[in-house]
Amino acid sequence: MAKKDEGSRVRDALRVGGELPDPGSTPVGPGKKAKALEELGSAGERLSALQEALYAEGVGGGRRSVLLVLQGMDTSGKGGTVSHVLGLVNPMGVRYAAFKKPTATERRHHYLWRIRKQLPAPGQIGVFDRSHYEDILVPRVNGLLTAAERRRRYAELTAFEAELAEAGTTVLKVFLHISPEEQLKRLKARLVTPEKRWKYNPGDLEARSHWPAYAKAYADIFEKTPTWYAVPADHKWYRNWAVAELLIETLAELKPRFPAPDYDVDAELAKLKGVGARS
Amino acid sequence: MAKKDEGSRVRDALRVGGELPDPGSTPVGPGKKAKALEELGSAGERLSALQEALYAEGVGGGRRSVLLVLQGMDTSGKGGTVSHVLGLVNPMGVRYAAFKKPTATERRHHYLWRIRKQLPAPGQIGVFDRSHYEDILVPRVNGLLTAAERRRRYAELTAFEAELAEAGTTVLKVFLHISPEEQLKRLKARLVTPEKRWKYNPGDLEARSHWPAYAKAYADIFEKTPTWYAVPADHKWYRNWAVAELLIETLAELKPRFPAPDYDVDAELAKLKGVGARS
Repeated sequence: MAKKDEGSRVRDALRVGGELPDPGSTPVGPGKKAKALEELGSAGERLSALQEALYAEGVGGGRRSVLLVLQGMDTSGKGGTVSHVLGLVNPMGVRYAAFKKPTATERRHHYLWRIRKQLPAPGQIGVFDRSHYEDILVPRVNGLLTAAERRRRYAELTAFEAELAEAGTTVLKVFLHISPEEQLKRLKARLVTPEKRWKYNPGDLEARSHWPAYAKAYADIFEKTPTWYAVPADHKWYRNWAVAELLIETLAELKPRFPAPDYDVDAELAKLKGVGARS
Repeated sequence: MAKKDEGSRVRDALRVGGELPDPGSTPVGPGKKAKALEELGSAGERLSALQEALYAEGVGGGRRSVLLVLQGMDTSGKGGTVSHVLGLVNPMGVRYAAFKKPTATERRHHYLWRIRKQLPAPGQIGVFDRSHYEDILVPRVNGLLTAAERRRRYAELTAFEAELAEAGTTVLKVFLHISPEEQLKRLKARLVTPEKRWKYNPGDLEARSHWPAYAKAYADIFEKTPTWYAVPADHKWYRNWAVAELLIETLAELKPRFPAPDYDVDAELAKLKGVGARS
């Protein structure tokens, strides 16, 4: 699974396989903010180039796409990651979807119903801000799933992702790992800053009170479902750097290619020579 | 209609009302590239701040949204505008949709069917790369609409946009105006640059051959449907500057506001003091 070449250096270091790294650590790459910001700048160029090639491939009839799944406790920085990492590429190629508490309509459908409606089209990078994993996480923590139901959901989720792979979608699953101490700071910041108060939700404290249960539920998810990456997220600069690199490695491995023209280039150039400049 | 205050300076200058400006002109704002690029940088900050407030308003239960409709001949820079202008804001708040030649399934529905599925959610900035106007433009140029059918479509489009306004969506319609000479250059560039060939479509030359008919059809649209803005688009730097400013003026007029908390800030702060740092 783990290829030891340069093209999977960050993935190899951050792939979940037991204990999670410390939320304040920097297991791979820059350990300092200035360096991380500098590297993120050049990552933006690589990411844009890869995204454009994937998009072009899609226009040319290719079916491949990438889906970045972001999970993490409240304030772990899912939104910030979207802004700072996906903000580096052309919005034409990005499809963003947030999954909040299911609506009444959504609850009347299978939990994958609303997920399927938001999958990336060929050539796109889809981004899920929370995802189908909420549907095993939340009910489990709230004690609403029997062991048998849990097993069935794991099987469903694994089958669903196999289906996505089959359809050409590469799924990159990232857990943004923050500490309870950092969360407390961020929740306070949301409350004391008037322009941040809209981000605060009293329910966040309820979820926080179940922190150990969430940690356990996540550990179970990491064990029972295919490959996850854990990004230490107490430092926003490290989180952005790491997610950008994970995305770059994932895209680079696909080797997206500009499609060969399905028309005769020379014939078209000749036609262009024949038309007047005016029209 | 035209308010002569600073908040609609660019809209007032670019609002269509008769002859279109020269595609190479700069009727308002910077006339030089360096200045336009500099101003676009600061526009990015204003645009981001407005977009965040609109998004926050949506999270707080607000229903307002903005829909940027981009129309223009092939190579007029619809994609480039999305990349350079919408690329300045948080992808969470942007919903992009391109409308190409309708698929077989789409053709079996009313032409507004596929349009309605892509409308921005509350708090979002929707972007249509081509739009419902293609459904009067293309069939008209191809001689497929009788005068009566045309009248009905105009009435439908106007009613549709009134419905959007009613639902809280402000529509900003922009025509990217290029010259045939500039189009010829851009088509050639697409053919001679291998990484651009995927953007070339032999059908573009067919559309080009009907340039005067398209110009006439557009003039009719500008006359028969609500407010349009024409952006001279031979200079990409001017096009980007102008669309950014049109979007800023449109958003600023809405005065999007961060929602008041629907919880008791002091009570939540007190609760936060009570919880341990660990969780």
